[in-house]
Amino acid sequence: MTYHPQFGDIAHLGHIELRTSKFEESLAFFTDIIGLHESGRSRDSVFLRAWADYETFTLQLTRAESSGLGHVAFRTRSEAILAQLVRSIEEHGIRGEWRTENFGHGPAYRIASPDGHPVEIYFETTKFQPVGDQTPGYKNMPQRYRPLGIAPKRLDHLNLLAQDIKGCRLFFHDLLGLRVTEQIVFEDDEMGAWLAATNKSYDIAFTRDRSKASGRFHHLTYMMDSREDVLRAADILVEAGVAIETGPHKHAIGQTFFLYFYEPGGNRIEIGAGGYLIFDPDWQPVVWSRQERSKGQAWGLPTVSTFHSYGTPPESAE
Amino acid sequence: MTYHPQFGDIAHLGHIELRTSKFEESLAFFTDIIGLHESGRSRDSVFLRAWADYETFTLQLTRAESSGLGHVAFRTRSEAILAQLVRSIEEHGIRGEWRTENFGHGPAYRIASPDGHPVEIYFETTKFQPVGDQTPGYKNMPQRYRPLGIAPKRLDHLNLLAQDIKGCRLFFHDLLGLRVTEQIVFEDDEMGAWLAATNKSYDIAFTRDRSKASGRFHHLTYMMDSREDVLRAADILVEAGVAIETGPHKHAIGQTFFLYFYEPGGNRIEIGAGGYLIFDPDWQPVVWSRQERSKGQAWGLPTVSTFHSYGTPPESAE
Amino acid sequence: MTYHPQFGDIAHLGHIELRTSKFEESLAFFTDIIGLHESGRSRDSVFLRAWADYETFTLQLTRAESSGLGHVAFRTRSEAILAQLVRSIEEHGIRGEWRTENFGHGPAYRIASPDGHPVEIYFETTKFQPVGDQTPGYKNMPQRYRPLGIAPKRLDHLNLLAQDIKGCRLFFHDLLGLRVTEQIVFEDDEMGAWLAATNKSYDIAFTRDRSKASGRFHHLTYMMDSREDVLRAADILVEAGVAIETGPHKHAIGQTFFLYFYEPGGNRIEIGAGGYLIFDPDWQPVVWSRQERSKGQAWGLPTVSTFHSYGTPPESAE
Amino acid sequence: MTYHPQFGDIAHLGHIELRTSKFEESLAFFTDIIGLHESGRSRDSVFLRAWADYETFTLQLTRAESSGLGHVAFRTRSEAILAQLVRSIEEHGIRGEWRTENFGHGPAYRIASPDGHPVEIYFETTKFQPVGDQTPGYKNMPQRYRPLGIAPKRLDHLNLLAQDIKGCRLFFHDLLGLRVTEQIVFEDDEMGAWLAATNKSYDIAFTRDRSKASGRFHHLTYMMDSREDVLRAADILVEAGVAIETGPHKHAIGQTFFLYFYEPGGNRIEIGAGGYLIFDPDWQPVVWSRQERSKGQAWGLPTVSTFHSYGTPPESAE
Repeated sequence: MTYHPQFGDIAHLGHIELRTSKFEESLAFFTDIIGLHESGRSRDSVFLRAWADYETFTLQLTRAESSGLGHVAFRTRSEAILAQLVRSIEEHGIRGEWRTENFGHGPAYRIASPDGHPVEIYFETTKFQPVGDQTPGYKNMPQRYRPLGIAPKRLDHLNLLAQDIKGCRLFFHDLLGLRVTEQIVFEDDEMGAWLAATNKSYDIAFTRDRSKASGRFHHLTYMMDSREDVLRAADILVEAGVAIETGPHKHAIGQTFFLYFYEPGGNRIEIGAGGYLIFDPDWQPVVWSRQERSKGQAWGLPTVSTFHSYGTPPESAE
Repeated sequence: MTYHPQFGDIAHLGHIELRTSKFEESLAFFTDIIGLHESGRSRDSVFLRAWADYETFTLQLTRAESSGLGHVAFRTRSEAILAQLVRSIEEHGIRGEWRTENFGHGPAYRIASPDGHPVEIYFETTKFQPVGDQTPGYKNMPQRYRPLGIAPKRLDHLNLLAQDIKGCRLFFHDLLGLRVTEQIVFEDDEMGAWLAATNKSYDIAFTRDRSKASGRFHHLTYMMDSREDVLRAADILVEAGVAIETGPHKHAIGQTFFLYFYEPGGNRIEIGAGGYLIFDPDWQPVVWSRQERSKGQAWGLPTVSTFHSYGTPPESAE
Repeated sequence: MTYHPQFGDIAHLGHIELRTSKFEESLAFFTDIIGLHESGRSRDSVFLRAWADYETFTLQLTRAESSGLGHVAFRTRSEAILAQLVRSIEEHGIRGEWRTENFGHGPAYRIASPDGHPVEIYFETTKFQPVGDQTPGYKNMPQRYRPLGIAPKRLDHLNLLAQDIKGCRLFFHDLLGLRVTEQIVFEDDEMGAWLAATNKSYDIAFTRDRSKASGRFHHLTYMMDSREDVLRAADILVEAGVAIETGPHKHAIGQTFFLYFYEPGGNRIEIGAGGYLIFDPDWQPVVWSRQERSKGQAWGLPTVSTFHSYGTPPESAE
Repeated sequence: MTYHPQFGDIAHLGHIELRTSKFEESLAFFTDIIGLHESGRSRDSVFLRAWADYETFTLQLTRAESSGLGHVAFRTRSEAILAQLVRSIEEHGIRGEWRTENFGHGPAYRIASPDGHPVEIYFETTKFQPVGDQTPGYKNMPQRYRPLGIAPKRLDHLNLLAQDIKGCRLFFHDLLGLRVTEQIVFEDDEMGAWLAATNKSYDIAFTRDRSKASGRFHHLTYMMDSREDVLRAADILVEAGVAIETGPHKHAIGQTFFLYFYEPGGNRIEIGAGGYLIFDPDWQPVVWSRQERSKGQAWGLPTVSTFHSYGTPPESAE
């Protein structure tokens, strides 16, 4: 009997590996300006997290020839569900690879999205344990808030450019159980898909790459508690001489407040806040037409053209 | 084989029926000062909702001899899960009652918490359909935002006073699958329990009634998008001559920003914002001791004594 | 002996008369969507104010053939200073006109700016007296805050397009004592001037009209307490179907948070917040070059082209 | 002819000298947790400022036997006005003392308030000049914003405890030209006075010392741009283990958003935001009665009793 993955089987986005061709500059940027915390190092990577991320890390920064996505990993609801999802994936004729030697988490099963983005699922994890002055004043928080740089609260989502939006959407919905929350469909052409593993309005998004490239990375997002924090982040970037690509402004899709810029390696980063939660278990995807998207972002800001043309390439493209 | 309800079986808090002994004043308060929208009426009730609530209503205001909780209803993940939960409940020797004639939703199965609070579960529902000038500018929102009064975004949670905190906690965890997120335990005495059906840090809470009463109602909460909105709500209440019980301030538990006051019928109402989301599928409850709770709220505000002594009674107490 | 007007002689911007060719629509817009309060009417005008404005009115909306500035009025520090300023103006060879029959304030002396904008100065005024449910909960506020529409707090400033920026700057500095706070100078060509009568960074601004017109009106601004309020205003506008010209974003000049749109008559309106206060009594104007202005607004948003080309005409142009 | 000092003669609060008996701890607190910047040192003092303060310093921290006010200094509108104010003061029979060797500013004339608080007035000052990475991204700001600690924007005001509120009020109004903005009068007994040199609702306040001490210091205040920043400051203090005395909450008087705590030396410090501006040149003081003050702060928070009983002593009391 075929298993039908359901909403909740994937508990949440776990971490993102980002390749950077300017490793030292990128690392300084993420620690000093963004304000992430270092959890550890391997030969070519540094592992980072925001102060309220509960796992050992949420960002793996890896020294590489080119910048772009290394891989993205999602944590399953349980060990049993991980095994079930893997069986189900393989029954669909997809053969992934188990990776067992991982910093901060247990065995991960790696597959590729239809556009070639490396995707891992895992369950076993090492939760962050604060030591010394990391001990939080609020015992329901994993770590003390450190007011240095932008200091985002937690990893929120990522956006991947793709040629095959429909394929990627079905991959995450059919094989992993994510909920399709919003879509852009131009006439019959799928241009974007937003999917959620949680009550958030999205944990991963795919938008159409208008270049001919496949498997490119669009952006990852760390979240603040308030829109005021995002406005403050914009000032911090200006003061640091970092060019802002677009924002702060509100997305029509997802209703999140956004601010986009590039880390030194050229990967696009977003600092966000807000959005809406979805509680309806039979939520129907909100579908946006070409005409509706022509209105730009929520308050009318035109979507910048680089949004459709700029991404960082997959490793295989090096 | 016994079914073990799991996290996600209950999709979310659906609505709350509030009895009020000052029906007309209460109704005016919820529509004019809070800024809820009326969806319909029955003989003794008016049905209300916040602008971003997706169902027909989230608050049923009922004319009654005394004020307090009418009932609280949770929506299940699916029709099949509703049936499964009912079977499971009955296997535990609890015999509920099906209520089939309901405004805005389908059949609901009513049981009582160990402290006697009426609790319903249902799946079938009528989603809100905007008409005319209710049509939202943002198509992912159920209704146009109307800037009148406090205008909260959505129903968030409720808090029930109870003598038997442990019983209520186990009832919602074992029979309905909610996640226990935080607890107060004084020595071996359970004083409070926070439980979630969603990624929010709680959807229902139980706190110890320090009077001898059972089944009393503590408060219900509508949510704003930002803490600034809560500060603005405080000004609206002052301008309307409504006494604030406590806040705005931040809860240590749940980290939500709060503002408490009473509607004319005497039921306690909260306007809130913020808090944290739980993504960890094997989250362990955060347990607060007497000594930790003696520090008051997040920034040191002492918890007001009325919090432990004031509640509105159950219907059976009339 | 020639009197040299000094900073403080003009106490503040008093009110603005705005002509509108769509009187009924404009009035409905200012009362229902902006949330201003009506204080009274004359034959062709309605007098409006924000809830925290202390005078009888700050906006006179006048039925007219074309939309644009009627006049702008500033209140002097005292009756004696008013007389002194008038003497001084006349010694400069400028002959104004006393207007004695005014709604809400005493005699006003009317002159024209070098670009032809009608400017009045007055001292005697009728302060707003709340009655009934206008009585504020906070006795240091002139009126109860009414949570309806955008509900700005107070009038802040206006911006006038001009051909002769230098002339307008000198007029307000030399004849009225305002402080020049910021300027735009392209090579030797003055493109903009910001002047303050108060500790705010500006109460009036002049920017170069890149059309050939003189005496045009750029915008007037009502102020909110927080940037969150401005973001909320943007949602209110979208929900009301009002097109946003640009923003919300932060001005580099003045550091104010802005949101621009048009009232039905076509006059540009701003809802703002924030900015900086100037305490330094020997403040030197901050001068921005062409190259510095090419960076756009504070966080990089390009200045919209309509900002330099669109304005509403003077009455004489009808 | 007697000169009558007028509003505007004092341009603004310049700086505050704070004595501390725990110099090293206090210095670390102001630089690491508050996030002030060091401008220089003398034998027993370190000079500090917030990032948007335009003068060399706004806080002089001085090693002393006891903690409390060293002195408070106000900058005059001009050199001529300084001389005029000194003549006027001396005509009132008060003999002050010129201090000519000052870090960061020119000659200051020192007098004592009726309660004995040392007060200086000066005009000549050395404006802060950013060097290296202090150079701001916004050229209308004196320095780059550095996101470290609370990082307030600017010095705002101070509050002094006094036995003779009326004397202190008349001293600042009659001799220095400050505007009386708000007062507390219990029956015929003056309990508090708020005075402004600027459009802010106060730059200095006096509140009745309910102990028998004279000349004590109540608090000084650094200002944030938003109330969200004050809420964030509260979290920073909790995380640093600093006990909050009261707040965040809104003052009824002045309408400012407040947060009070103690620096290691025991001096009370406030982080604030908001409030209202006064533009009316013939503003009448708002007078609060005992009954009105019994309502507590703006949203009903009772005023903490330490507010009336705790202050740090004058130097002469050592």
